[in-house]
Amino acid sequence: MSGKLILIRHGQSTWNLENLFTGWHDVDLSDLGRQEAAQAGREMQKEGLAPAIAFTSVLKRAIRTLWIILDTTDRMWLPVERDWRLNERHYGALQGLNKAQTVEKHGEAQVKIWRRSYDIPPPALSLDDPRHPRFDPRYADVDPKLLPATESLKDTLARVQPFWQSRIAPELAAGKDVMVVAHGNSLRALVKMLDRMSESDIVEFNIPTGIPILYELDERLQSRGRRFLGDAQAIAAAQDAVRRQAEKK
Amino acid sequence: MSGKLILIRHGQSTWNLENLFTGWHDVDLSDLGRQEAAQAGREMQKEGLAPAIAFTSVLKRAIRTLWIILDTTDRMWLPVERDWRLNERHYGALQGLNKAQTVEKHGEAQVKIWRRSYDIPPPALSLDDPRHPRFDPRYADVDPKLLPATESLKDTLARVQPFWQSRIAPELAAGKDVMVVAHGNSLRALVKMLDRMSESDIVEFNIPTGIPILYELDERLQSRGRRFLGDAQAIAAAQDAVRRQAEKK
Repeated sequence: MSGKLILIRHGQSTWNLENLFTGWHDVDLSDLGRQEAAQAGREMQKEGLAPAIAFTSVLKRAIRTLWIILDTTDRMWLPVERDWRLNERHYGALQGLNKAQTVEKHGEAQVKIWRRSYDIPPPALSLDDPRHPRFDPRYADVDPKLLPATESLKDTLARVQPFWQSRIAPELAAGKDVMVVAHGNSLRALVKMLDRMSESDIVEFNIPTGIPILYELDERLQSRGRRFLGDAQAIAAAQDAVRRQAEKK
Repeated sequence: MSGKLILIRHGQSTWNLENLFTGWHDVDLSDLGRQEAAQAGREMQKEGLAPAIAFTSVLKRAIRTLWIILDTTDRMWLPVERDWRLNERHYGALQGLNKAQTVEKHGEAQVKIWRRSYDIPPPALSLDDPRHPRFDPRYADVDPKLLPATESLKDTLARVQPFWQSRIAPELAAGKDVMVVAHGNSLRALVKMLDRMSESDIVEFNIPTGIPILYELDERLQSRGRRFLGDAQAIAAAQDAVRRQAEKK
């Protein structure tokens, strides 16, 4: 029997608070984000979930969320694999910009296209921009040709899927329960695959922060159903917060 | 050229405070232990050390020390490999016992033999003792025949060395700087190998907690010299504390 899959989007970051485009910029959790992470750990415990391995990105807001969950559930010994392919969607030259200013400069219609289209990426970082990932030591072992300077959601999917195939799916197929702590768009890539969602549906699907999503899978690792863990009120509030954030953007 | 090797013994644990035999029992750091870990991170930064990979045990006092170092040095993204073979020496049936009581029961001479001999292990845990590692989910993937119920220092060396050969040495040989955050006796295993120390010398060699030890290695991964990182006074104080603890035991 396939293992269970638990997806968790990191809690609120300090840049969410300031309404900046984050992408691959490495910001930390806010205090609220840390509380969300601890709550996610408690919900997993209530459900009796004890994954055998965890995957996360190389960005600290996801890693911190994972650390808090491991601490809360007393499973700090769990094997953890960090991989850049679980990073948030790369936001190109918009990274670090205030969302209101970006709307002023490029117009609301254009910004909405970058945010909500499936395959149109924002303007790319130039190769000599100090924000380009090739200058960051955490990507030193990655083939520079693979490192993005901007991404559409489609581009994000294209690098999440090979990681799913090569690293996550084999653990589930071996019967292990697996936890993935990642980002709004890298998790969308997984949800789209598992639920066979259309491109137009996935861009409208908002993943709440800090609410574990539990998938039961069949032998071909297709979803037999998913549900959010937590009390209904907290889940509704988290979904509402993400929707409002999306509208604000 | 071979990479540099940084060894760090975890900071003070809550059971060090209470003077209990710890071994594989999974206790957390004390507040002082957390401060020691942060200081270790700052010393590595001062020295300009930026390891490319970290190894640690599956015990939380080592993992917490590593987490604090990664956080302090802003390298939470570093690949981390946890392995039971870097655990502290297994202390058998003495685990969880107060040291004074153990001396009362078995006599000071016998306890000193268990603590300070190279190849005499304490009494083993019975197979049905709930403290036996076979009941702990973190060892579920380990061949039960390899799981110890007690260990001498020699036994600890015998399981650290294959891990060194198979996992740590290849990274150093590839030129990567490597950090190992572990325990008094699993680190003794590495020091004995690197410095070609005798059995009688290694049992007398006390590794201070929270003081990074920097090794420069030759092409055969033998030591070209080691030194402690930090100011002389702090190092002397840490060595003194470990010596007093050993005498107290």
